[in-house]
Amino acid sequence: MSGREQAFITALRQIAGDPAARNLSDDAAVLPRPSGDLVLSHDIIVENVHYFPSDPPETVAQKLVGVNLSDLAAKGAKPIGALMGYSLGPDYKWDQAFLKGLESVCHQYNLPLLGGDTVAVPRHTGHFSAMTVIGLAPSCGVPDRRAAKEGDELWVTSPIGDAGFGLNLLKQKKNINHSAQEKLVQAYRSPEPRLKEGIWLAPHVHAMADISDGLLIDAERIANASGLAVRIRLDRVPLSSEAISCFGDTKSTRLQAVTAGDDYQLIMACAANKRQELLKLSKEKQFDLYRVGQLTAGSGLSLFYGAEPIKQPDRLGYLHG
Amino acid sequence: MSGREQAFITALRQIAGDPAARNLSDDAAVLPRPSGDLVLSHDIIVENVHYFPSDPPETVAQKLVGVNLSDLAAKGAKPIGALMGYSLGPDYKWDQAFLKGLESVCHQYNLPLLGGDTVAVPRHTGHFSAMTVIGLAPSCGVPDRRAAKEGDELWVTSPIGDAGFGLNLLKQKKNINHSAQEKLVQAYRSPEPRLKEGIWLAPHVHAMADISDGLLIDAERIANASGLAVRIRLDRVPLSSEAISCFGDTKSTRLQAVTAGDDYQLIMACAANKRQELLKLSKEKQFDLYRVGQLTAGSGLSLFYGAEPIKQPDRLGYLHG
Repeated sequence: MSGREQAFITALRQIAGDPAARNLSDDAAVLPRPSGDLVLSHDIIVENVHYFPSDPPETVAQKLVGVNLSDLAAKGAKPIGALMGYSLGPDYKWDQAFLKGLESVCHQYNLPLLGGDTVAVPRHTGHFSAMTVIGLAPSCGVPDRRAAKEGDELWVTSPIGDAGFGLNLLKQKKNINHSAQEKLVQAYRSPEPRLKEGIWLAPHVHAMADISDGLLIDAERIANASGLAVRIRLDRVPLSSEAISCFGDTKSTRLQAVTAGDDYQLIMACAANKRQELLKLSKEKQFDLYRVGQLTAGSGLSLFYGAEPIKQPDRLGYLHG
Repeated sequence: MSGREQAFITALRQIAGDPAARNLSDDAAVLPRPSGDLVLSHDIIVENVHYFPSDPPETVAQKLVGVNLSDLAAKGAKPIGALMGYSLGPDYKWDQAFLKGLESVCHQYNLPLLGGDTVAVPRHTGHFSAMTVIGLAPSCGVPDRRAAKEGDELWVTSPIGDAGFGLNLLKQKKNINHSAQEKLVQAYRSPEPRLKEGIWLAPHVHAMADISDGLLIDAERIANASGLAVRIRLDRVPLSSEAISCFGDTKSTRLQAVTAGDDYQLIMACAANKRQELLKLSKEKQFDLYRVGQLTAGSGLSLFYGAEPIKQPDRLGYLHG
């Protein structure tokens, strides 16, 4: 182990304070027997695929944790630990800033860092990091992407599209000088997993997932996995006031919002007779919930603006690679 | 998701048959409540750091699984699942061969693949893969690297050094044309985690770890973590007949063996009065176990050949980066 690697791990120890982490001094973490089923997810993020080399390293850590926790949110699970794989790049200041972001985001979501691995990689290898998160399943059972029922209504948390708009701003290399633009870029760089909402919603849904690749594609995945068709009402999709102030509220903006990735909002299929219950829940717990479509017999996706059928865009969502 | 990524995941589904994997169609895996404590480990392997671009892809999969399971072996844990992160490179044939190796090694160790993530990476990014393994802790409790006691004897499974010798052969770009050389290269490329031995040994040890960076450095880590000194008898270190036939049995060979990484043998500290019990266990279960040293009061590492003190080598083990 190099001095650089050693210094990094020493700094990590400050973050990994849970006894299960064994001070990062053992071969493995030891987690006391969980009180229920486990939900497990693993996501990697890679420079120039999931973030720009120019993104602040703190936000890269926030993205790593955010996208992983979002999978737990989609299953209504409570995070109980994480393991991280990290490529040490040539720039130790970058690594230190990443650690600062990691500490802050682990603290924010009360996520114990239990262990992992650090590798100094050859200079030409782009930076990447991997995370596995472990969550405690909700006692109501874990919502499945495959369990939507005919007649279910499709709901989403809000807003939709902000991260995609932020990505576009960065791609256009515009000066980000309005607070609205900053908010959109922040949505792209530092996604906020809907953990609380996932836990509240899990007992009320048939199927739930997170929107990682775009509302349309993730809605279609629920429909496909459940053997159903899905209809989406474009006019009902919740845009943020920041998105509207930067891009206006047009059909084209809305099509952009529903085909953009990295939202990390929740999308769920719920029995139609649960509508009042869901609205009451969102009011009580003070989070936004929008009914944007319906699951019906058949297959495939159809899109409407009010009653008007809309041509399906060529690209339903974000396609890596 | 690109067609290439989709094809890879379709192929992965053939391997991830456990119901907990949810057919790789959901956001996360759902593992029924485990019957005991959990042991968790995460290791990444990177091209040009942990393996050569010319290594057969099947063996890269074996190494990924082997190094991860070795951490469970060191804690006496029984594997119950794994999640994998994988960088899709430019060569799909390579990926397919990797999958073939993955399927075979998961089958060999009865390891359910539960989920993970696949990312098509930019061409210049070297190949890497990450794995998190989850194991069921032994009912006797999980051996800790930090729990060796003064007077403990130090034991290792056998052989020591083969992987390092294999690596040297590959570095020298020699033609590998003897079965002994092949065996050494195989030890480097396809480490065999000592899972069964770990489970058998766990109830008898104070401390246990796997030898990933070299016998000396890993012995010193146990000593440091336990606040003790360690004495190693070089003449007692078990070399394989293949290592001896290729490199002879000299002090220099032995020094090479104890400072080479990638052994993935187990190293453990046991009470001196357990000696007969351990020898009986190794005879009954038919695996080799060698007493190579002792933990004493104090700190640091000292090295002997018989009664003769040996100068400590500059490099105690394999240092990545």
